[in-house]
Amino acid sequence: MKKLRVGMLGLGTVGKSVAEILIQNQSWIAGRAGASIQIVRALVRQTRKRREGAASKIPTTTNAQDILDADDIDIVIEVMGGHEPAYGYITQALKRGKAVVTANKAVLAAHGLEIAKVVQQHHAAIYYEAAVAGGVPIIRTLRHSLISDRIQRIRGILNGTTNFILGLMEKGEGYDTALRQAQKEGYAEADPTLDISGADARDKLAILIQLAFGLDVHPSEIPTEGIGSLTPEVLADARQLGYRVKLLAIAKRVGNKLEARVQPAFVPFEHHLSAVLDIENAISVDSEALGTTLYVGPGAGGMPTASAVISDLIEAAQQQGVKNAMSLRSQRTALKLAKPEAAISAFYVRFLVEDRPGVLAAITRILASNNVSLAAVLQHERGLDDEPVALVILTHPTTHGAMSKALNKIKQLPILHGGLSVVPIEEQRVTKVES
Amino acid sequence: MKKLRVGMLGLGTVGKSVAEILIQNQSWIAGRAGASIQIVRALVRQTRKRREGAASKIPTTTNAQDILDADDIDIVIEVMGGHEPAYGYITQALKRGKAVVTANKAVLAAHGLEIAKVVQQHHAAIYYEAAVAGGVPIIRTLRHSLISDRIQRIRGILNGTTNFILGLMEKGEGYDTALRQAQKEGYAEADPTLDISGADARDKLAILIQLAFGLDVHPSEIPTEGIGSLTPEVLADARQLGYRVKLLAIAKRVGNKLEARVQPAFVPFEHHLSAVLDIENAISVDSEALGTTLYVGPGAGGMPTASAVISDLIEAAQQQGVKNAMSLRSQRTALKLAKPEAAISAFYVRFLVEDRPGVLAAITRILASNNVSLAAVLQHERGLDDEPVALVILTHPTTHGAMSKALNKIKQLPILHGGLSVVPIEEQRVTKVES
Repeated sequence: MKKLRVGMLGLGTVGKSVAEILIQNQSWIAGRAGASIQIVRALVRQTRKRREGAASKIPTTTNAQDILDADDIDIVIEVMGGHEPAYGYITQALKRGKAVVTANKAVLAAHGLEIAKVVQQHHAAIYYEAAVAGGVPIIRTLRHSLISDRIQRIRGILNGTTNFILGLMEKGEGYDTALRQAQKEGYAEADPTLDISGADARDKLAILIQLAFGLDVHPSEIPTEGIGSLTPEVLADARQLGYRVKLLAIAKRVGNKLEARVQPAFVPFEHHLSAVLDIENAISVDSEALGTTLYVGPGAGGMPTASAVISDLIEAAQQQGVKNAMSLRSQRTALKLAKPEAAISAFYVRFLVEDRPGVLAAITRILASNNVSLAAVLQHERGLDDEPVALVILTHPTTHGAMSKALNKIKQLPILHGGLSVVPIEEQRVTKVES
Repeated sequence: MKKLRVGMLGLGTVGKSVAEILIQNQSWIAGRAGASIQIVRALVRQTRKRREGAASKIPTTTNAQDILDADDIDIVIEVMGGHEPAYGYITQALKRGKAVVTANKAVLAAHGLEIAKVVQQHHAAIYYEAAVAGGVPIIRTLRHSLISDRIQRIRGILNGTTNFILGLMEKGEGYDTALRQAQKEGYAEADPTLDISGADARDKLAILIQLAFGLDVHPSEIPTEGIGSLTPEVLADARQLGYRVKLLAIAKRVGNKLEARVQPAFVPFEHHLSAVLDIENAISVDSEALGTTLYVGPGAGGMPTASAVISDLIEAAQQQGVKNAMSLRSQRTALKLAKPEAAISAFYVRFLVEDRPGVLAAITRILASNNVSLAAVLQHERGLDDEPVALVILTHPTTHGAMSKALNKIKQLPILHGGLSVVPIEEQRVTKVES
């Protein structure tokens, strides 16, 4: 039987799980891969560190060249994460003709184009199922099952941490309490900025866009809004109106333009994406021939991610010798990124205003003069004397640009008492709003 | 560029869509497949029939051997459907070393074992993504992404027609009206028996079991109950209790046994499978490393099915020369089919009974003596004098065997006025029943 020798870059949570699956299911995986797979050595920070289980049997090194330059290694698994030195290592391995399996979304999102060039020039192969939505096989599905189809839209819940936090906030928890709970459960890092700001979801969206639409988009080009400004009041309003708030990563073909953004949005209860709870991830794909398909599963965690890495490894083994395998992008298109202002949504807007006559008129006048028309107005119960009250407005679909212009003017009104929340409505409910 | 010559068996709805996609996207598909793909000829019933669009450009024959024996054909696409002669044709093509792409669930379900042997003996290759759940890429996902994982359970909504009918019944339509509506929309055949009886879902489940659990199961071994006995009252009760009724195909590993069945079941609103509406199909897979993943999409229709056929065709092209490709089963296991009576569920039971004292006591006594304990009892409003009333019982989890014994005894009670409905509850709601 053919032998495949694997070098690992990193032996953390994911790395250990990879080692465990590989060693525990050796003969079984060999049968499927058509080759016996052996981990030759792993790059670690400290060779002396005591390791448990399968990972303890793997020879370690602190010198990356022992993996990248080694003649006895065919495939490199990169599970160290972060931009550098991971990016350099991946490039080196590809240039030396090794197949690379990586879970590194940051590197792929920022350097997809450069890596694709290296893959092509060196007839190399790269696999990255684990980089987007962990255990959800979206990369393989886009590459294989949707290969003959023309993709129109992708909408994803690509960050489990924020989805978990939003779930708690929907039940009335404040943002800070919800975040602490996520940290306690191990779902959020000590520094949760990448998750909360939407940057993590944005990186994954960039990878999906490169693959599904053949567009070289850098993550920094994708307008991104995190969940930091959402309040329990907004989530309660959403619930009352029949929606959940989800942090959506959206890419949508409009003519020869591609709209792309990461932003919290209202999703109706009846929609599949609304049923994605806790740390689950989900991707909904609209394509020409197939219609709408949905993929849901665990977005993170050692075992799900490791499972994705192993499936890549087996495919790499099966395709040994196949050149340019699993390239990072579909065939190039003439698509260009659309201007963010041109995107069209209905909106939910929540104002905290003085409770006196003329307030609503002032606001609606500004909205109307910017071509934003109202679908519904809800005034929350009055507070005590002189307390500001919440005014909730649902608009008809309008451009994000028009909405933003109108809001800038409204913000200057003296009747506004802060607390302005604006959330696009991703899909409007068919049923009537109950007021 | 390498050339791949395709012969088609059948040129109906799916066949025409395949031809259309292939011809319209020729160069694009060639780029992905690494080969130019050409339809050489198609087997049809009448060569003289007038055909429109892409299909009109394909040379036709009424002699199957012009495809199966032809030296100028590398790949055979079987989209004629039905058991025979399709089964014989598939086998002949494989024996002659041609790769076969098929959408034929009936043949694969009934003859999976024999076909797998032919594939192995003749180092052939067969691809059948389109045979299960149309456009949902479940076969490829099981073969590639879940390849390293141990699958514990599969639950699917595998028949769009029945799902559509149940949706209408949930809104209060009677079974007959709902069926006629499905026929009018083109979702149900003139003879809808295969859908309604659960046989179609059962065939697909058999294919999934062969692939995911490595168990040679014949469709006839899978206990199957259709939707014919469901009434709008049952669906209304379900809705009131927070459930939808779905025709579920279930396969579940319990120790070294595999439970398998097709049966209507209560699914809580909060569950993803409950959000599968209209003619959508969905498959939920529980596996050891990955956890729960869900795949949803169009289960039928010319274009979705054709899209699955094309993705297979491209994979066949990429794997030309790879032997035993896409075999029909995972590695063999020691699993055996479990006795249907041993399956465990909570149950919903609806009785039509005489409205007099002692009725509930008589029923609960029989249930208790068969180890079926009650979770809730709901009595519907009284009717007119002497009219029988509906009694709804929810049980705690019990074996299907115990439930069935108890019901057989209850059926003999003179107080029962027909109208007995029994539906297992696939997952109990966490929240309390509102009575």
